[in-house]
Amino acid sequence: MLPIKTLTVLGTGVLGSQIAYQAAFHGFAVTAYDIDDDALEKARARFARLAGIYQTANVAGASEGKAAAALENLRLTTDLAGAVAEADLVIEAVPELIELKRDVYRKLAELAPAKTIFATNSSTLLPSDLKDSTGRPDRFLALHYANNIWAQNIAEVMGTGETATEVFDAVVEFARNSGLEPIEIKKEKAGYVLNSLLVPLLNAAAGLLLQGVASPETIDKTWRIATGAPSGPFQIYDVVGLTTAYNIASSSPNAGSQAFAQYLKANYIDQGKLGVATGEGFYKY
Amino acid sequence: MLPIKTLTVLGTGVLGSQIAYQAAFHGFAVTAYDIDDDALEKARARFARLAGIYQTANVAGASEGKAAAALENLRLTTDLAGAVAEADLVIEAVPELIELKRDVYRKLAELAPAKTIFATNSSTLLPSDLKDSTGRPDRFLALHYANNIWAQNIAEVMGTGETATEVFDAVVEFARNSGLEPIEIKKEKAGYVLNSLLVPLLNAAAGLLLQGVASPETIDKTWRIATGAPSGPFQIYDVVGLTTAYNIASSSPNAGSQAFAQYLKANYIDQGKLGVATGEGFYKY
Repeated sequence: MLPIKTLTVLGTGVLGSQIAYQAAFHGFAVTAYDIDDDALEKARARFARLAGIYQTANVAGASEGKAAAALENLRLTTDLAGAVAEADLVIEAVPELIELKRDVYRKLAELAPAKTIFATNSSTLLPSDLKDSTGRPDRFLALHYANNIWAQNIAEVMGTGETATEVFDAVVEFARNSGLEPIEIKKEKAGYVLNSLLVPLLNAAAGLLLQGVASPETIDKTWRIATGAPSGPFQIYDVVGLTTAYNIASSSPNAGSQAFAQYLKANYIDQGKLGVATGEGFYKY
Repeated sequence: MLPIKTLTVLGTGVLGSQIAYQAAFHGFAVTAYDIDDDALEKARARFARLAGIYQTANVAGASEGKAAAALENLRLTTDLAGAVAEADLVIEAVPELIELKRDVYRKLAELAPAKTIFATNSSTLLPSDLKDSTGRPDRFLALHYANNIWAQNIAEVMGTGETATEVFDAVVEFARNSGLEPIEIKKEKAGYVLNSLLVPLLNAAAGLLLQGVASPETIDKTWRIATGAPSGPFQIYDVVGLTTAYNIASSSPNAGSQAFAQYLKANYIDQGKLGVATGEGFYKY
């Protein structure tokens, strides 16, 4: 098994900061890279907030000093060369712009030692879209986290046809060692496993609402009672955030999705109701 | 509110017997009709089994004599005229053959008093497909139960454009009084709410399996962890039964569904693995 002991996370946005913090919480020495001091300042605030969240959410050990100790495992830097010089694994969590990501990989290819494994956290691109820029397609794959890592603790591991088996296995082991359940995906698939399941459910719920079949409350109640799930589809929409739901729906060629995007905009987004994050979406919080 | 005190259930198959027993368990005087003494003999056995199941499943009150007392609220008959002569509500749960159902409604139209409300439990037909045979479209609607009523205790209530509001409301109230959560559907929709949500999820899971993206275990684990649901899609397939899944998939024009039907047949059905009911499906029980 290839040893993964040191981790570098590129990008300290919502998910990048969670990825870095989660690994630090589980004892990894983590370097978090972002482009300037402003970004690092925000990252520091995110990490401090996460330490509080892990305690509030009762993540095992968080209240016994582990949440605070995690902060000491995190090093912040704007120096890319220094950030990756000793990394066993680099997780890239930069914005979802293909040319930006390719540019990052071209730089990484030069700066990182030959041993370093690269993993993209992209939700919307396939690793095959990026592999040619890495200079090491056998040591490159996707490692995809869901938002609110501490609660939805899965990490989807998905290689390309060129990813070496030992690299795949090492990243699976890393995910497990950082407190997540690794989801081993055997073949490239847009949306990985989770979104491939979730999106059709959410689309179906949107269709029922738009067709006037039933209210969000009724649809959610049906799902909760009949399947035993804790949340119905509109509760999930509120957690995902209605802006994200709008962006996905409006970029679909499907007429129903377009109609749902307009519905979300007119009834929720234009009124500042963006879901759980703003205190109101389909439900009030 | 129209009073619903006496119930007649037509058909004592898997679901008909559950519908009758559930109402009897909640104190309704229930007449269960089927076509011959053989069918009634089987119905008696089903009711006795249900009394045991309600106790094993810890349905509230079942172990304090309610499960046995329910049997005394059930009257079995092969006389259709007598069965419906005093019924406030007739729930039709005969086989899913449109001409058979229409024939039943034409007979009912003559035999039942004017007050009687008719409800179909059809999963695959819309009430609009049947209303013209009832002679009373204003007193006709769908009342749809999910299998294993004691566990998945919802009842979907769905009228046509002609169903009277007071009839809809009375049936909603009846569902509630028989221990179920009524799901009020405002517009006719094939699949009601539950199957409109569930089928796209199950189809997506089947697609991931057939495309070789991940195993049933991995797919289910992803769903359980990320959404908090107690069961993943392949566990749901096993509960629904692989024969039912096969019938639905093979009757779809979609190529992916056809491929899944063949997959189910070759790998499970031909080997007698039909799901939870036979002790093995995607999982062993």
